[in-house]
Amino acid sequence: MGSQSEAEPTWQELVANHQALQRSNIPEGWILNRELLEKLIGGDDGKISGIDLITTRAAEQAQILTAKELEITELYSAVDLLSKMATGQLSALEVTTAFCKRAAIAQQLTSCLTEIFFKQAMQDAKLLDEHYKTHGKVKGPLHGLPISLKDSFVVDGQYSTVGYVEFLRKPLPTGQSALVNLLQDAGAVLYCKTNIPQTMMTADSENNIFGRTLNPHKTSVTAGGSSGGEGSLVGFRGSPLGVGTDIAGSIRIPSLCCGTYGFKPTANRVPFAGQALTPFPRLHLPSGVLPTAGPIGHSVDDLEAFMRIVLDSNPWNYDQSCFGVPWNTADPAFTTRPLRIGVPPEDNEYTLHPPVRRAWEGAIAQLEKAGHTIIRLPEDESRSIGLGARIAFASYGAGHPGPEKLQQMMKEPFVKSLALGVHPFTKKPPPVPRSADIGEVLSALTTAVDAYAGSWRQAWVEHSLDIVLCPGAQSTAVPHDTFGVPAYTCAWNVLDYPACIIPYGRASASLDPDSAPATAAFDPSYDPEAVDGVPCAVQIITPRFRDEQCLAAAKIVDSILNPARA
Amino acid sequence: MGSQSEAEPTWQELVANHQALQRSNIPEGWILNRELLEKLIGGDDGKISGIDLITTRAAEQAQILTAKELEITELYSAVDLLSKMATGQLSALEVTTAFCKRAAIAQQLTSCLTEIFFKQAMQDAKLLDEHYKTHGKVKGPLHGLPISLKDSFVVDGQYSTVGYVEFLRKPLPTGQSALVNLLQDAGAVLYCKTNIPQTMMTADSENNIFGRTLNPHKTSVTAGGSSGGEGSLVGFRGSPLGVGTDIAGSIRIPSLCCGTYGFKPTANRVPFAGQALTPFPRLHLPSGVLPTAGPIGHSVDDLEAFMRIVLDSNPWNYDQSCFGVPWNTADPAFTTRPLRIGVPPEDNEYTLHPPVRRAWEGAIAQLEKAGHTIIRLPEDESRSIGLGARIAFASYGAGHPGPEKLQQMMKEPFVKSLALGVHPFTKKPPPVPRSADIGEVLSALTTAVDAYAGSWRQAWVEHSLDIVLCPGAQSTAVPHDTFGVPAYTCAWNVLDYPACIIPYGRASASLDPDSAPATAAFDPSYDPEAVDGVPCAVQIITPRFRDEQCLAAAKIVDSILNPARA
Repeated sequence: MGSQSEAEPTWQELVANHQALQRSNIPEGWILNRELLEKLIGGDDGKISGIDLITTRAAEQAQILTAKELEITELYSAVDLLSKMATGQLSALEVTTAFCKRAAIAQQLTSCLTEIFFKQAMQDAKLLDEHYKTHGKVKGPLHGLPISLKDSFVVDGQYSTVGYVEFLRKPLPTGQSALVNLLQDAGAVLYCKTNIPQTMMTADSENNIFGRTLNPHKTSVTAGGSSGGEGSLVGFRGSPLGVGTDIAGSIRIPSLCCGTYGFKPTANRVPFAGQALTPFPRLHLPSGVLPTAGPIGHSVDDLEAFMRIVLDSNPWNYDQSCFGVPWNTADPAFTTRPLRIGVPPEDNEYTLHPPVRRAWEGAIAQLEKAGHTIIRLPEDESRSIGLGARIAFASYGAGHPGPEKLQQMMKEPFVKSLALGVHPFTKKPPPVPRSADIGEVLSALTTAVDAYAGSWRQAWVEHSLDIVLCPGAQSTAVPHDTFGVPAYTCAWNVLDYPACIIPYGRASASLDPDSAPATAAFDPSYDPEAVDGVPCAVQIITPRFRDEQCLAAAKIVDSILNPARA
Repeated sequence: MGSQSEAEPTWQELVANHQALQRSNIPEGWILNRELLEKLIGGDDGKISGIDLITTRAAEQAQILTAKELEITELYSAVDLLSKMATGQLSALEVTTAFCKRAAIAQQLTSCLTEIFFKQAMQDAKLLDEHYKTHGKVKGPLHGLPISLKDSFVVDGQYSTVGYVEFLRKPLPTGQSALVNLLQDAGAVLYCKTNIPQTMMTADSENNIFGRTLNPHKTSVTAGGSSGGEGSLVGFRGSPLGVGTDIAGSIRIPSLCCGTYGFKPTANRVPFAGQALTPFPRLHLPSGVLPTAGPIGHSVDDLEAFMRIVLDSNPWNYDQSCFGVPWNTADPAFTTRPLRIGVPPEDNEYTLHPPVRRAWEGAIAQLEKAGHTIIRLPEDESRSIGLGARIAFASYGAGHPGPEKLQQMMKEPFVKSLALGVHPFTKKPPPVPRSADIGEVLSALTTAVDAYAGSWRQAWVEHSLDIVLCPGAQSTAVPHDTFGVPAYTCAWNVLDYPACIIPYGRASASLDPDSAPATAAFDPSYDPEAVDGVPCAVQIITPRFRDEQCLAAAKIVDSILNPARA
């Protein structure tokens, strides 16, 4: 009640407090000692040396999980786990404990988490087990499944700082995100949230509160962003199924970087309402490109199960922006005939790294060999990936106050990837006039988006396409803070087309030995040694609202490209 | 080739030329002589005297249609006609000729048409008949059905002036509207376009080119707008099925004024691309309220047939804005149990005329008697009709140059309803700040729309509603240029909820004898004699994307309210 105001804490003090809080939420017995840590990721925390935590079986080496817990976290898909819990072969508590332990190890090795609430998760799991015992059946279609969430989802009692120190100056958020309510009603167990880039506007998941997320396949390369913590955690199998968000590639970039499957649905099919986005009032302009929530997981089946369960759980009842069209389980016609696969030309503005090109062409050859029809789409600037990227970035920028004003508001330094700034897109003319008149800009953006969508529709109809197959990015995961412009992902956000990342093959210094240094700012360099062994991937795309067809086709493609997984 | 420029024609000259062209497109034998005209609608063209062209059987009196043509135009629904043509009981040419004749009469009595292309229609019908003879089957699901279109649809070789003289100064438009292509591919016969208000922004379908559309039920009252010509033509049975557009009530207002059925679908299910909207470059801002195309017809079955056929014709192949979700023919659960019908309170800002209130309460009583559950929704400002109207009008105005600037550009006088201006909405606070910063306005609008939608979702979930039942307007059709603010329609545009108008009962000076003069500008006066005998209606509403449920419920409601029609 004193009138004297206390000194405002510095951003460093707020960070130190929050890091200590985060640490305290990992049970003492699951803390790795310095010796073990150094053994597992080296003295520089693996940032320079580049450890492959998967091949070295770091999760097992940490000696925290029992043999059964290793089995639970490694051998089963999310669909398997649900089935085993529904039939009483596994308890929700067993499964939750296993993933909490593995997530705790992941966090200590890769800094993939933000808020940690294992204790609450285990209480929730116990209640689910009691429900199962009492009623002899599951609570809902996600009964007992631990699901990890990108930090921007709001969960009762937890911060959603999305890496802004400013959020630590404010009270805890109130009211959960719509999807969080839906998942809990369906019986999911929520246990942790995952790391993101400062401002969520880069592909490097680093911020001043939670540090930098590392890639479990090679700690010296990026885990991607903005759902980078999610990609890293799922990649480490610290989560059976995670939820990210995507307005430029934020589900798909971490997936292709971390060797996971990732699906960006049509916007507003999965509830997006109630996200923590920024602590500062700003314009949320309806600029034509919509964000969307979607799953990151270990198989197309798991992605599809997530979509089906969410869409059949009356999502509109949770979020008025949702369309409320149920998942359409009818088999698409192409499951009984060859797929017609459109292949766009490599964009001359965003040329591909050799391993990406090799994976793409390899996938095309495999699919053709399996009897599917490949249609090489002709060069056409009106539907180029580059034009899509230019429209996307004009849209993201519409109404944004700009980096200098943002920096003033933030009262904390920019991390490196953010300080690098935004691609100026000067190689080709801008898709909309650079005008201070936001009305004029939005009007021009609407026209540009419609023309781009019209050109793609025409291609689709003219060639009777079922899907388009293209890379997910110019590059694989690359050394930290060097990922380029996400042209191959954000073009599909402009169209609001569903898109699925399927891991396929690996970068190889022996197969692609010639380095290719970047020739322009913001282009990623190809360094064969730096990315040797990291995952490659392809992207499957269908028109808006054909999410069902996208995943059905992804299953077919995956069974050909990754027969061992099927 | 001379260098001397000709004098620019005046707007009066352009209008005179176009009216002569329009007249020349009605075959000589179908022209009503002055004597007959005066007999049918009186010396003032029925504008003051108020003739009921339906009860007086003006179409028959005109002695242009044969007995069979009267039968074709009066006794069958669109679904009946399609079935009779598909089984060879009627030819496309017979049906087309009958409706061309009746539309010619309608035009001469009510000025409901804009462009007339009967000759082309009859050629198209002949080709369809030949196709049927050659192949022994129909060309498509709309084989031979004459469909009338609001003037804003672009048809090859025809003007789309939407009542702007400025468009007569320009060349004919090129490229058809997406829906026009779809309808033609499905076998429909296009034969005329229908009148609209100048600028399409009022509920009185009058402009300087095509004059004022009269209501066939009473020529002294408005036919509504902006699809007023469509309502009048269908009301006169000069069309078996028409297509209008609706961003504030433009399908539903003519329907409730003219005693027809009308359906405003969720936006972007029916193709809307390629509309003629304005000859002047202006901002098309993504302001949150979307226009939509939809049917006006003689029964819910006909509306449903239109929706089913359009949505099952791959609309996305014609218009990239379409969702491409097919019509879902699965029977909604409520077809086998009582409906849960939400009834909102009468809005205290937009009180109802006695005949409207009587029809609404009468419908509620009938539905309750038939075993359905009525839920009276409590008063709640956050989901009031009035708030919806304020949000809608703030949205329509965002980025608009304003009436004075528009007037300068137009170089023709405003018609009376437009000159009256726009409701100032001063009774209650504005839903968004009045700001010159369009970014701020759009951002606030997005927030306001979302909050309004959230409140309605909450009501829907809390009360487990199937539908909402409410009036379509404060009033019935009223004397020309006195229709009020379309609050009871545009609120649902803000929500993008599908809405269906069902005719029910009539205004009656004997049942509601007390006049109620308007107490504020823009409110409509209730004058019992002026509206005696005009149609009343109710409106059925479901949440976004539940178009199938809306029409399924409308069928149930209609069978109770209008058993003789069923």
